[in-house]
Amino acid sequence: MTDLLSDLRAVLPDRAVVTDPDLLVSYQRDEADLCAYGLPAVVVRPRTTAEVAAVVRVAAAHGVPVVPQGARTGLAGAANAVGGCVVLSTTAMTEIREIDPVARIAVVQPGVVNSALAGAVAAQGLRYPPDPGSWESSTIGGNVATNAGGMCCVKYGVTSEYVIGLEVVLASGEVLRTGRRTAKGVAGYDLTKLFVGSEGTLGVITEITVALRPAPEESLTLVAVFPSTAAAGAAVAAIASEGLTPSLLELLDQTHLLAIEAYRSMGLPTEAKALLLAAADTGERAGADLARIAAVCEAAGASEVYQATDATEAAALLQARRLAHAAMEKYAADTYPGGRGGLIIDDVAVPRGSLASLLDGVEKVAAEYDVPIGVVGHAGDGNMHPNIVVDRADPACLERGRLAFDAIMELGLGLGGTCTGEHGVGLLKREWLAKEIGPVGVRVHEAIKAALDPAGLLNPGKVL
Amino acid sequence: MTDLLSDLRAVLPDRAVVTDPDLLVSYQRDEADLCAYGLPAVVVRPRTTAEVAAVVRVAAAHGVPVVPQGARTGLAGAANAVGGCVVLSTTAMTEIREIDPVARIAVVQPGVVNSALAGAVAAQGLRYPPDPGSWESSTIGGNVATNAGGMCCVKYGVTSEYVIGLEVVLASGEVLRTGRRTAKGVAGYDLTKLFVGSEGTLGVITEITVALRPAPEESLTLVAVFPSTAAAGAAVAAIASEGLTPSLLELLDQTHLLAIEAYRSMGLPTEAKALLLAAADTGERAGADLARIAAVCEAAGASEVYQATDATEAAALLQARRLAHAAMEKYAADTYPGGRGGLIIDDVAVPRGSLASLLDGVEKVAAEYDVPIGVVGHAGDGNMHPNIVVDRADPACLERGRLAFDAIMELGLGLGGTCTGEHGVGLLKREWLAKEIGPVGVRVHEAIKAALDPAGLLNPGKVL
Repeated sequence: MTDLLSDLRAVLPDRAVVTDPDLLVSYQRDEADLCAYGLPAVVVRPRTTAEVAAVVRVAAAHGVPVVPQGARTGLAGAANAVGGCVVLSTTAMTEIREIDPVARIAVVQPGVVNSALAGAVAAQGLRYPPDPGSWESSTIGGNVATNAGGMCCVKYGVTSEYVIGLEVVLASGEVLRTGRRTAKGVAGYDLTKLFVGSEGTLGVITEITVALRPAPEESLTLVAVFPSTAAAGAAVAAIASEGLTPSLLELLDQTHLLAIEAYRSMGLPTEAKALLLAAADTGERAGADLARIAAVCEAAGASEVYQATDATEAAALLQARRLAHAAMEKYAADTYPGGRGGLIIDDVAVPRGSLASLLDGVEKVAAEYDVPIGVVGHAGDGNMHPNIVVDRADPACLERGRLAFDAIMELGLGLGGTCTGEHGVGLLKREWLAKEIGPVGVRVHEAIKAALDPAGLLNPGKVL
Repeated sequence: MTDLLSDLRAVLPDRAVVTDPDLLVSYQRDEADLCAYGLPAVVVRPRTTAEVAAVVRVAAAHGVPVVPQGARTGLAGAANAVGGCVVLSTTAMTEIREIDPVARIAVVQPGVVNSALAGAVAAQGLRYPPDPGSWESSTIGGNVATNAGGMCCVKYGVTSEYVIGLEVVLASGEVLRTGRRTAKGVAGYDLTKLFVGSEGTLGVITEITVALRPAPEESLTLVAVFPSTAAAGAAVAAIASEGLTPSLLELLDQTHLLAIEAYRSMGLPTEAKALLLAAADTGERAGADLARIAAVCEAAGASEVYQATDATEAAALLQARRLAHAAMEKYAADTYPGGRGGLIIDDVAVPRGSLASLLDGVEKVAAEYDVPIGVVGHAGDGNMHPNIVVDRADPACLERGRLAFDAIMELGLGLGGTCTGEHGVGLLKREWLAKEIGPVGVRVHEAIKAALDPAGLLNPGKVL
């Protein structure tokens, strides 16, 4: 009987097999706080589809789980190792194989970083819209596996809408091709979309064909300052009912404004209870569209509406939004010093018309459970990230944080929402997924998982 | 032992159970010519989800297949009855349950006709874009089951992109809810998209939640006349590489121009080898965008480019395009009188850059097999419908038609295309689907079918 490591070394180049204990530790988990993880037996970093298939076959022969990983920027623990597993990192699969401006598609390996693809297609006058917060480090493979969102979604949609074909190594080690290179196609079941967002539980994605768009036009940006989060929420609903579709519509609450100012002084209006950031990229009409958005914000009670005078100023506003995550981590660390500060990053989406109720409800949850909760997110999609600050060293505080998390999930579902708008299920939301989709939904999920991975070796324990 | 009919009558109102032999005959098939069909044992027309579930349970108890049907306007035989089956027509499920302008969604039963939904949302300043040729008679349920396309797709995408949630009766009779009402959501596997386009083989869709858009802006329309289909194809590729996205980009070849003129005289330029119809709906910029499209067409060799002077004239041009199907049916009937004329309607999509090669190739196929083939379709998507005219009474002609059909499929796949851009697999394309997705793809399809419909009673023999 050969052992796992020898068998992996037999099918992979030396550099692709990592067993150094110090390195193994760094592959244990993604960025989700407070999720379980274990130490992998080995990390492999294949470069080709054939190598991925060989790894999956070897692991299957040994009955060892395979946990696929991208850049580990996920926020739900979906990439967390289970003890003794093979971590299959796709970060060495960085080839951009093709960019076709006529078909408006690109073909990439999964380890290509989002910003690298965005830059490569921009050089050809094209655009790959999906822009998760992690876009400068996260991989397209990870984006596809989690169906990542971002700030563009309010107008341009999520990752799923851009994935038109995949190559996937199945649990059997066989290579499946799904989808197409054409603008349209209905040949058989939509397996492409089934793998998008399946978090590595159904197969390992080894090549991705994405649809591209023409280069974006310049956009104009405004900031609206609100005396309450509910007024900001009402403005978002009114923007939609006016038939407007901004290219960006983000919300920051006062906790975030204070945290960002403390992290990097940018002159944000920290006295505001909420701030909306909106942009229009409709060419000659952007000014008029933005003026309509401004008028709606004022009618909804904005105390100030300010339009960025140039692209530099607009970029600075966006930069403030992009700092939200880092700033809240610092806020948690400052609130509970000595490594005790923890951040439970939640992700909930409700129908746009219920955004004000969600924001109201989160404030009540924070008060009820006596934990600071900052809210930031993609207001135009009704997709909010309530970030709960906890003291990891204080079990009572940690428990209050978890109860607040549950209360927010309950609130979101009660408003006709979903337990995850873009971060995914991973380990963090398994019980909430089951609650959302119900017993029939769970059985269908299990049946599909069993059909594609009968031995249950692909990223076990995630999603389901 | 009770019989099937008694059991169905026990769970349905009288009016919902159709056994009149004359009526049964009318539910045998969709609009695909030359596909097999059988006589159903019974047709049921339930109105509620509970009735659908009851029908599926009764049929399952008797081991009788269930064939779901919408308006039977499909073009691949997916709705064709199998002998002795229960045809489950959703045409009595016509309730529009909700239109929410803030969330920009509508919730409908499957039997709602496409144009009825489009009209209802338009009355609220909204738009449901998918516009298959059959939109005035086909149902949303059928559109979803086949993932229907249309003329809007070049800019607005196919049905799938608008379906965000479903209620589905499974083979077990259980009711599954998939998806969401929110703009974004990644809770679990994308079961919604798995059911879209699955042609009734995985479940019976009983409620659909669709995303809507704001009302469209007025569009401007042009016609470009080409001396060859290849030049028209080259113009389409050039429009894409210029970064232009027309709201409509359709092609009619000379055969279609002649057929439409014969069907209804409209003053079409029947001396042209191909005609492109393009529109822009970019508001104030539509004129400039259309001028750029005109310039591209001229550079690609258009002999004439003509812009519609007003909305009435633009509507007349679109009307000509919409008559293509009926006109070609008449052309086939006139070519082979006495009910002998048949039309094999094909549907192939290639990457936009290969459109000219596809058009060239189809002309060669027509010559080689000595059958008239007219080509019409959604040029901007690379999605063409080569329509093959045959004499049903002449086995040799029929055989040449079938060989031409196969040659076109082979040609499309060879150009990196798909065997069906929008009409689906049904009975017509099963072998070509298998060829396109390969043995691994077929096994995955079979595994999913078996997971969801282990007894194989839902629309058996379709797709796979």
